Amino acid sequence: MRAITIKHPGSAEVLQEINALKPKPEKGQLLIKVHAAAINRTDIMRRQATAQQPPYPILGVEVAGEVVESPCSEDHFIPGTRVCGLVNLGGYAEYAVMPADRAILLPDSLDYIEAAGLSEVFLTAYQTLYWLGKLQKGETVLIHASASGVGTAAIQLAKQLSKAKVIVTAGSEEKLTFCQKLGADELINYKTQNFQEEVARITNGIGVNVILDFIGASYWEKNLASIAVDGRWVLIGMLGGTILPTMNLETLITKRIQLIGTLLTPRSDRYKAMLTQEFMKVVGPYLAKKQVKPIIDRTFSLDEVKKAHEYMEANKNIGKIILTLSSK
Amino acid sequence: MRAITIKHPGSAEVLQEINALKPKPEKGQLLIKVHAAAINRTDIMRRQATAQQPPYPILGVEVAGEVVESPCSEDHFIPGTRVCGLVNLGGYAEYAVMPADRAILLPDSLDYIEAAGLSEVFLTAYQTLYWLGKLQKGETVLIHASASGVGTAAIQLAKQLSKAKVIVTAGSEEKLTFCQKLGADELINYKTQNFQEEVARITNGIGVNVILDFIGASYWEKNLASIAVDGRWVLIGMLGGTILPTMNLETLITKRIQLIGTLLTPRSDRYKAMLTQEFMKVVGPYLAKKQVKPIIDRTFSLDEVKKAHEYMEANKNIGKIILTLSSK
Repeated sequence: MRAITIKHPGSAEVLQEINALKPKPEKGQLLIKVHAAAINRTDIMRRQATAQQPPYPILGVEVAGEVVESPCSEDHFIPGTRVCGLVNLGGYAEYAVMPADRAILLPDSLDYIEAAGLSEVFLTAYQTLYWLGKLQKGETVLIHASASGVGTAAIQLAKQLSKAKVIVTAGSEEKLTFCQKLGADELINYKTQNFQEEVARITNGIGVNVILDFIGASYWEKNLASIAVDGRWVLIGMLGGTILPTMNLETLITKRIQLIGTLLTPRSDRYKAMLTQEFMKVVGPYLAKKQVKPIIDRTFSLDEVKKAHEYMEANKNIGKIILTLSSK
Repeated sequence: MRAITIKHPGSAEVLQEINALKPKPEKGQLLIKVHAAAINRTDIMRRQATAQQPPYPILGVEVAGEVVESPCSEDHFIPGTRVCGLVNLGGYAEYAVMPADRAILLPDSLDYIEAAGLSEVFLTAYQTLYWLGKLQKGETVLIHASASGVGTAAIQLAKQLSKAKVIVTAGSEEKLTFCQKLGADELINYKTQNFQEEVARITNGIGVNVILDFIGASYWEKNLASIAVDGRWVLIGMLGGTILPTMNLETLITKRIQLIGTLLTPRSDRYKAMLTQEFMKVVGPYLAKKQVKPIIDRTFSLDEVKKAHEYMEANKNIGKIILTLSSK
């Protein structure tokens, strides 16, 4: 089968197509004929990681496709079943294996391209807003990098599931307008506005209950000033650096802040399965009615995988970048 | 009635006894004849707080005594009922009012002196270990300042309720031996040992699941090194300072740390009531069987309140310092 790996760690130039053996599903796994696979930042980090040794893996952690084999699995995964979900590498390929308890059954409303962009961002947004951020109905949430995959998912979930007041930051009017269409209530352009001042104005000085923070160091003091008493601050990325020149712990105590570092990819299979099951139960009906939907920026064919990585590294996308696989 | 207030903000010398009016309970409150009141650090902070204006309040947030009036309250608070609990100031006095939903019914096993030392430390220990720290059965917990009121309560709860592995730090062999008697499994003298190295040895490099941190800045790097992946780090005091010279956020994400700042006293009445109700249900049976017990260092009479404050400020106590009130 066609599959994408790397020649050695490096830039997008090291990506190469190989002819790989079709994987064999074990008990509890599904063999998926992949119709579409998402490009994720973790793929780029994996491509670049100098610590790894050959043989290098097939890249890709997120696919959508149809079940072709399901040894010892439950009846609802009969061949032909349309699913999407996270895989432990091996996603950029014609076939991939997926733990059955991580497979999300696709509603008719989602095609494979949309479905390939669902799992990582929506599971991460759901996990950070609800499992970690404990977002309550009607609370206020501040979402940074709001036009990112997780950002666009989080805006929709916070609005549709929790009727939250959603404040977003992004770096262009185009991105902000897009976020507004998804449900964001208050738009802050971080290039022309001070978000700390804007949040104080919008919340009458009370601050926000939850922050989804993909930025880290460069926003630290402003986030600290923007969070309300008993606020939950979910630290999920460090696009703005990792080193704080100094830090005063006092505000953490006086505001009773919960500062929560997280990553989804390295968590256990069991954790991902539990998250997937709850997500399907809670968010499935909203997906079926198209009240929330994955945001796809554009697609590339498997031949164009280098271009797809370079496109992500240029940071211009709003929503997900998807690789499409057509049978040969 | 006899009561203790301050002449003006300052040292223990400003404490003075006054003849105050007996308070009147409103609906939902109990009037308590106080038999014993605990000295807490918050009382000392209140005594010193220069921001406050006269008239100065009656100090004290924690009492034990008997119900003498319970307007519109439920049947189980008939006059004579023995209770303890947190009050919103007014505790260093012959009578105090207490929200009825914060009153803890005393098992026969506890006398008033022990009971006066129960609420603040046990509710704080329960809240930080379970509501915030999410301690699970058999996990490992690191308790700093372990001979403090909250520390001694936390050792007992972690051991009795969760069969946790309890690692403690303190600054003297006397304090460590005392903690061992309460159930601590591993003792670290922070004056002669490096707790980071000891925790690494004890946990085979895995680290601890929960940290109760009363120290803050001076222990920062060692706590960061000592916490396990998915660890919960409850920041509840800053005896070691508040300012970090630098901080690297990366470990918060890669270890998926939950860093949780907290204080109990300023939280809402509703929060305290919910905490009290759950505490009674879960810990009540252990108290009744004396499987957990408040640790009392010594008592002072109301006349000796200055000495009692000075004694706390000298940091020599193991367990609580209690004021006793006898009728005149």
